[in-house]
Amino acid sequence: MPDWTKKPGAPILTHPYGQPSAFEKKVVRRTATQLRSGQGSTLTPLASLRGIITPGGLHFERHHGGVPDIDPTRHSLMVHGLVDRSMQFSLDDLHRLPSVSRIHFIECSGNTGSEWTKATRTDVQGTHGLLSCSEWTGVPLSILLAETGFARDARWILAEGADGAAMSRSIPLAKALDDVIVAYAQNGEAIRPEQGYPLRLICPGYEGNTHIKWLRRLKLGRYPFYTREETSKYTDLMPDGKARAFSLTMGVKSVIVRPSGGMKLSSRGLLEINGLAWSGHGKITRVDVSTDGGRTWTNARLDGMVLRKCLTKFTLPWVWNGESSILQSRAFDDSGNIQETRQTLHNRYGDNLYYHNNAIQSWSVSESGDVSNVFI
Amino acid sequence: MPDWTKKPGAPILTHPYGQPSAFEKKVVRRTATQLRSGQGSTLTPLASLRGIITPGGLHFERHHGGVPDIDPTRHSLMVHGLVDRSMQFSLDDLHRLPSVSRIHFIECSGNTGSEWTKATRTDVQGTHGLLSCSEWTGVPLSILLAETGFARDARWILAEGADGAAMSRSIPLAKALDDVIVAYAQNGEAIRPEQGYPLRLICPGYEGNTHIKWLRRLKLGRYPFYTREETSKYTDLMPDGKARAFSLTMGVKSVIVRPSGGMKLSSRGLLEINGLAWSGHGKITRVDVSTDGGRTWTNARLDGMVLRKCLTKFTLPWVWNGESSILQSRAFDDSGNIQETRQTLHNRYGDNLYYHNNAIQSWSVSESGDVSNVFI
Repeated sequence: MPDWTKKPGAPILTHPYGQPSAFEKKVVRRTATQLRSGQGSTLTPLASLRGIITPGGLHFERHHGGVPDIDPTRHSLMVHGLVDRSMQFSLDDLHRLPSVSRIHFIECSGNTGSEWTKATRTDVQGTHGLLSCSEWTGVPLSILLAETGFARDARWILAEGADGAAMSRSIPLAKALDDVIVAYAQNGEAIRPEQGYPLRLICPGYEGNTHIKWLRRLKLGRYPFYTREETSKYTDLMPDGKARAFSLTMGVKSVIVRPSGGMKLSSRGLLEINGLAWSGHGKITRVDVSTDGGRTWTNARLDGMVLRKCLTKFTLPWVWNGESSILQSRAFDDSGNIQETRQTLHNRYGDNLYYHNNAIQSWSVSESGDVSNVFI
Repeated sequence: MPDWTKKPGAPILTHPYGQPSAFEKKVVRRTATQLRSGQGSTLTPLASLRGIITPGGLHFERHHGGVPDIDPTRHSLMVHGLVDRSMQFSLDDLHRLPSVSRIHFIECSGNTGSEWTKATRTDVQGTHGLLSCSEWTGVPLSILLAETGFARDARWILAEGADGAAMSRSIPLAKALDDVIVAYAQNGEAIRPEQGYPLRLICPGYEGNTHIKWLRRLKLGRYPFYTREETSKYTDLMPDGKARAFSLTMGVKSVIVRPSGGMKLSSRGLLEINGLAWSGHGKITRVDVSTDGGRTWTNARLDGMVLRKCLTKFTLPWVWNGESSILQSRAFDDSGNIQETRQTLHNRYGDNLYYHNNAIQSWSVSESGDVSNVFI
């Protein structure tokens, strides 16, 4: 009989705001890059997570000017430019308007960029950790634009953050009218500071950088605004030396999370292969899993909800008989897209690509049960 | 231009495990009762939350022997009694088995008990805060029972926790084979200590007390086990003095969260009425809202996903013209249940009922905009 059954545990309200068990202290975000003060990114510990929701404390980060400490009573959102009426919305104003709550993934377009030409990271936190998923609540941007009105020739919106980098991106007006949300809540509570407290633009299925954090301004115009982050950065360098700009929608993608790099299979026998699939184009319709490096494929089960522009969990029972194996997954979406091999993508885009690597990921299982990242 | 735009913000990885903004420090759990060391409950701050997911740190608590600090490597689940093979499952064993991830509410059957004969609490955290909702991941109990086998005359399962109270309840075997989950994760990460780390029995739609935390033992038998908590407690005292036992399924229920008791409408005009609806019997099919104390009703919009045995968010735009109003909501589920008035329930059950109060909640709005809890 363990000690904890023989005596009362910690009293109520030890933590008015609860925390994970101390036995889980290794389940934290890890720094990927830290270029200058405030610049850099951290990675979600995917291998320790289950299901599709990422807890607020473990959502990946990518900052260009650090995390501002914004007083919500001094913050507002300006909508101006090619509108009929410029308007400024306080948090209170936004809270009075019709709200929607939607579960969506956010993936940095640089996610898995390190794996384009060789296997560089040891685990799935390193290869795919610029990926998280939350329930976002806020006001559809279409409702704000119905209030301000807009000119017939308006086509793009500049979205700008209140951080030290004044992070700015151009969003097509058509996207704004479709499913963009001016969000004030994440997984039920106010958005976390690292995720844009008190306001974040949620552009479902678009690359993470467009989900402007600490949102303070939306300006309507005729053309894209060609900001720094969509010209010198966040474009795709093609084999002919030209840059593909505004490649906004994240491709169909999946990754096996368990087993994955750095793990060790403790014994032979039955285990569950599981992982995550997602597509910026819509819903996942199917995920296949291979245990022989892509020679044969088996349909995985899509577990639980299958939502548009959202992580989808897939699972497949597998009996590991002690042989060396190569584990892969490939996802399909309802727009007809299929996740492709590295070789196919390489043939199309060459070595220069860094963003938007949605190739099939391979994990090698050795006869001793060690799982590692391999380039196939 | 505010300070936070003029300089870099906090550097990356200030928090490997992130926390809410300091401006949200009032959004915490509040003690409802604290009877003895370790005994008591805390309430989820529903009025500050949005959407259907409750962040792990704000999930309500109800403990009978405090919060044990369990080392997961020393914890296991025993399944025995009327089984073909007694088995013991470590965390590692469970992680190898097929998993499911499902979003379900947990509601204490004592939730809103304080409001049965009069309005006693000032706000919705007080009246309805023994209610939370998470994505739970674990192994279907039916899979464990397929491993152990069970006798043809087995009908009930004793579920027991490893806390100082050894909390124990009887669960029908039919329920266990239907949708019960032996869960190890909540909202993506390991279950929080206050919610049963490292294992909790999730009995979707059943009263919270049956979702045994710190789960260590399941014993199959022919009859209910008549534990303390299902005989002297967690039964419903009927008008004739008899106790209704094993009233396990939570009834159809809803509550308006915004506006709700303790709030003040800042100005006249358009605002959004929103709230939550749920049923232990299945899916919510419809929610009506009244602003005149139940004389007239309007269909609210069900926002986002409508999942079985899960919170469903409803919303309705409302123009407040400055008149005094009584706000109410009533929910319908796909088993044909309709949320009833207090008077109807009183006529049926009398004054003695404490658990399972799922009556319509009324909030009064005064001409000055003050919102308060009223007994109607």
